[in-house]
Amino acid sequence: MDGLERYGHGGDRWTAGERFGKDPDSFLDFSANINPLGPPSQVVDSLKKALSETNLPVISRYPDPICRGLTHQLARRLGVTPEEVLIGNGGAELIDGIHSVVAPRRVGVIHPSFIEYERAASKRGLEILPLKTGWERRFLPERGELLDWIREVDLAWVGHPNNPSGTLLSLEDLAAAAEEAARWETVLAVDEAFLDFLPEPGEASLLPQLREFPTTILFRSMTKFYALPGLRLGYAVASEEWIRRLRRRQASWSVNGLAQLAGEAALQDREFEEKTRAWLAAERPFLLEGLHTLPQVEVLPGEVNYLLFRLELSDAGSEPPSLWLQRKLGERGIMIRDGATFPGLDGRYVRVAVRSRKENRRLLEILSEVLSSAGGTPL
Amino acid sequence: MDGLERYGHGGDRWTAGERFGKDPDSFLDFSANINPLGPPSQVVDSLKKALSETNLPVISRYPDPICRGLTHQLARRLGVTPEEVLIGNGGAELIDGIHSVVAPRRVGVIHPSFIEYERAASKRGLEILPLKTGWERRFLPERGELLDWIREVDLAWVGHPNNPSGTLLSLEDLAAAAEEAARWETVLAVDEAFLDFLPEPGEASLLPQLREFPTTILFRSMTKFYALPGLRLGYAVASEEWIRRLRRRQASWSVNGLAQLAGEAALQDREFEEKTRAWLAAERPFLLEGLHTLPQVEVLPGEVNYLLFRLELSDAGSEPPSLWLQRKLGERGIMIRDGATFPGLDGRYVRVAVRSRKENRRLLEILSEVLSSAGGTPL
Repeated sequence: MDGLERYGHGGDRWTAGERFGKDPDSFLDFSANINPLGPPSQVVDSLKKALSETNLPVISRYPDPICRGLTHQLARRLGVTPEEVLIGNGGAELIDGIHSVVAPRRVGVIHPSFIEYERAASKRGLEILPLKTGWERRFLPERGELLDWIREVDLAWVGHPNNPSGTLLSLEDLAAAAEEAARWETVLAVDEAFLDFLPEPGEASLLPQLREFPTTILFRSMTKFYALPGLRLGYAVASEEWIRRLRRRQASWSVNGLAQLAGEAALQDREFEEKTRAWLAAERPFLLEGLHTLPQVEVLPGEVNYLLFRLELSDAGSEPPSLWLQRKLGERGIMIRDGATFPGLDGRYVRVAVRSRKENRRLLEILSEVLSSAGGTPL
Repeated sequence: MDGLERYGHGGDRWTAGERFGKDPDSFLDFSANINPLGPPSQVVDSLKKALSETNLPVISRYPDPICRGLTHQLARRLGVTPEEVLIGNGGAELIDGIHSVVAPRRVGVIHPSFIEYERAASKRGLEILPLKTGWERRFLPERGELLDWIREVDLAWVGHPNNPSGTLLSLEDLAAAAEEAARWETVLAVDEAFLDFLPEPGEASLLPQLREFPTTILFRSMTKFYALPGLRLGYAVASEEWIRRLRRRQASWSVNGLAQLAGEAALQDREFEEKTRAWLAAERPFLLEGLHTLPQVEVLPGEVNYLLFRLELSDAGSEPPSLWLQRKLGERGIMIRDGATFPGLDGRYVRVAVRSRKENRRLLEILSEVLSSAGGTPL
């Protein structure tokens, strides 16, 4: 039996619904890393207002083809010019697009990391050079390995923080990578989709130094932090030249009108940001501790809103442990992410999102119940 | 002074707002071909309902990565299997994507036609073979020319009806083209974005015979007929093999959740379809007649919801007549499409959408006023 990542990712409640014979909306979803506090109320208010306007221009008229309002707002917030920002139909559109723009001979992907990098490369028939990392070093490469690898590829992907591990390189290592990338004319694509979940995101990003690194491109998402995955919203920050090239590759009107509106409203809700950081400061340690107490589980202390753990089961039948656990939890209405769907991991690994106290407690209870029934070897 | 098509298309009320110092939402927009009756009330109701649900799953959760609901509904309606349909983030995403899938050596584009074909080809550095058409033959190629051209290219675009002319090939000519395309392994891309506006769309499409033409792909839009351009929604119909290849090229989750929901609601509103056909049956002749009475205008009797006309002005200063008229009307809060932005046309041509009686009358009044002030030579 296959896992729930039939189309590559977590969060597919339709596949879960078919598999477990349940209403797709009924699942408690720990398989996608979405802020459970969102979307911000200002977003919902602005969408509702737009749907009450005469003639509904946000729907019945074309969206702004270059997202002027949101681009300017983001540029101000980020301290860059509007020409250094490009909005996308989710981060996924831009992650995909950069492979067409760079037309690399060889793409560097860290194992494990977000699967879209590899997917974008392989659907274009591009060669992939994986950089293997392990549990022991929190799935982070050493600086020397990183620089060697950057010299060998034309486009190198670094998740910062990385997904599914939730760990991140030091800013010094990342800057060294960016410098080496500039020297070797390698494009360094830094995926900061989960950066906003760090306690001090501004201190972890290359953004303030970005103009020193002409081949570095930052990819960000508004989907996770502001809980807008249904609307699709991401952006890239880079030199004017890279932004121009990326924009030229986009299909016309790729960012829909409601997403543009939602993004503008989300950025105005500073209270939501504080509430989110307060929530995560309490819930990440709670879930981490809770997982830690399970004898069959070894958890990696990721730094953002999801945690990767390793299972040691004495008997999960013929299934890999991660698939077995996904099935057991799915039958109970909970979705988790099978780590084996990330190249570089195997069927011992599972990723779960951090959610509300009540939901995290429920996950821990069910995990405890299910795992103890399976037996298991304390690690 | 440049025209309003700074980013390639009509409907850009932001550029118009900047240019004429007006509120973007205040323009009466004849430059984009959107059904003025829409969106259907069932769409608005379903969106509002979704925005009132607890936790807002349509926004806060990922959209269905393969659009199961809408795909199945469309397949039933079209009489094909769900594997023969692919939903896109507007028709524009699919029109762009097919160029990557086919990787043609040479792309055939009729002049004039929708500019996205040429744009998608040229941004990939592909060679373009234009097939020139003229006013005399209503911008339609003869069958012989059409078949010769199909033999010379790897991907051939036919607007059916064509945009901006509003005219269309006979089904016999189109079927001959599809047969020739299959024989020469040319992909025939038939853009049926405006087909739904014909009185009998079912009788004008290759859809019922599509399985006889393995290299023909139909591209359709839900944006124009259902007035959803702000949400983005289009689809392709083709063999399972082509649909699989197109899907593989899409970025993940490219179709947002509200667009999927809106599409499902729109298809259920059969009354809206009837109302739209009744509106167009009255308004197209009204606008056509009205344009006909203007001595400086020669109008092409297009068959759908927009009309192309040719201007003969004795004095428009140093500007091309179409730009001059666009400016004169823009100052009065009306947007029209400069025909010169279509390769194959020049500054004598203008395209206008068919809108409500009141709006069409207003356009005709202002046109009459503006054109008589310019002088002009009756054609």
